Amino acid sequence: RCENCKSSFFIMSSKPNIQVCLVSDLFNNHIISNDTTVVVVDLLRATSVISTAFHFGIKEIIPVSTLEEAKKYLTNINTIVAAERNAEPIEGFEYGNSPFQYMNNDISGKTLVLTTTNGTKAINLAKNYNLITASFINSDAVCNYLNSIENDILILCSGWKGVFNLEDSIFSGFLVNKLISKKDYNINCDSALASLELHKNSKKNYFKFLSNSAHRKRLKHLNIEKDTLFCLNPNITSNIIPTLSNGKLVRMNLV
Amino acid sequence: RCENCKSSFFIMSSKPNIQVCLVSDLFNNHIISNDTTVVVVDLLRATSVISTAFHFGIKEIIPVSTLEEAKKYLTNINTIVAAERNAEPIEGFEYGNSPFQYMNNDISGKTLVLTTTNGTKAINLAKNYNLITASFINSDAVCNYLNSIENDILILCSGWKGVFNLEDSIFSGFLVNKLISKKDYNINCDSALASLELHKNSKKNYFKFLSNSAHRKRLKHLNIEKDTLFCLNPNITSNIIPTLSNGKLVRMNLV
Repeated sequence: RCENCKSSFFIMSSKPNIQVCLVSDLFNNHIISNDTTVVVVDLLRATSVISTAFHFGIKEIIPVSTLEEAKKYLTNINTIVAAERNAEPIEGFEYGNSPFQYMNNDISGKTLVLTTTNGTKAINLAKNYNLITASFINSDAVCNYLNSIENDILILCSGWKGVFNLEDSIFSGFLVNKLISKKDYNINCDSALASLELHKNSKKNYFKFLSNSAHRKRLKHLNIEKDTLFCLNPNITSNIIPTLSNGKLVRMNLV
Repeated sequence: RCENCKSSFFIMSSKPNIQVCLVSDLFNNHIISNDTTVVVVDLLRATSVISTAFHFGIKEIIPVSTLEEAKKYLTNINTIVAAERNAEPIEGFEYGNSPFQYMNNDISGKTLVLTTTNGTKAINLAKNYNLITASFINSDAVCNYLNSIENDILILCSGWKGVFNLEDSIFSGFLVNKLISKKDYNINCDSALASLELHKNSKKNYFKFLSNSAHRKRLKHLNIEKDTLFCLNPNITSNIIPTLSNGKLVRMNLV
């Protein structure tokens, strides 16, 4: 049986597979090998925030699913607790889901507890696999790392409340395009092919391409378009690959 | 609250909404109004088979979910029972999921009981809405009809076993493009925008565009590429709009 299409014929190959899962709710429908590396993407904004926070010195990030769970950490020392729902910060929490909030050295060495609408859900869905997070900020490091291992790859788009979004899929296409430019992979996954097409159509100007997208309109309405601009074209680069270890995102130790 | 993005701001408009649901498993995540018309798409091949069967005179089609349910109809008179799983016909059933099987006048006036891998599942998921089915065979009639009503529209791609497929999404883009060329709609749905992009990239040659797609490869392997060619560029046109009524697909009575 073919691993990818679940149909009754074999595809013989020693090349690693690349799949893209367009919405986290579909993750369990993708058939993947146990040693697959899952790359979680929530470009606007959770995985961009994660990259930014590590770049500015955060020690570790604990992704939690509910506001209640996040609240338990509010009195911990050396801990920042951040919450976002529907693109808006939540009362009672010092930090939200804007990368600009994390651009200060106060966060250095601290633990960040983070709950967001979609990104933390995707992380928790795939927690039993090798899991890393990606954004434009750390995409070079992520692709170099993925090219260096032999594992199958699944890029997991968080989407928006169980529905497809454009920003995660064009970034997935960016990653797939970068990966296949350096190494041979099997792409027997229509979502990966679609992501490549969407990236091709958007790469001249991501911001313009997304002008009618639901989330760009949502962030525009909330007067936080600068967040969108930053996540699409960040002025910082990070070599840090956040990876899940015992329920916490930590810096991967690269050999 | 915005109906589409589920976020906390309003979009005021009297124009009907168009949404595309890229995989039937995501259907319940799309927020739609009660009077939405759901357009089920399983281009390769269930909704193309449905159009073909009506064109050749079938009276009604009963979509069923399981092979066991389908088997109960095997002894009924004036009834054809058709089954497909993983793109292959099933032993014990006279008919499968190839449109060419339905191109004969023996089917005229009969009832077709149909169970397929993905298409009948999508139909059953949306059975509580105004439901029609679309393929390239009846796309003109479908779009004229949709343009003539004021209902919101959700195009429901069947996908493949819970995973995105390219053929349903490019056909969705074809439908959206045709609909918006005649009338103003709200498109606050990233899946609809993505479908438009994928259609734009594929419209010169659907068959070529799909050359790496999972299902074209699957059908090629099974030596039924002529089915793919027919569904993408059918040589028949039908004005019949199949619509669900009391659990059966029947011809819509157009005024």
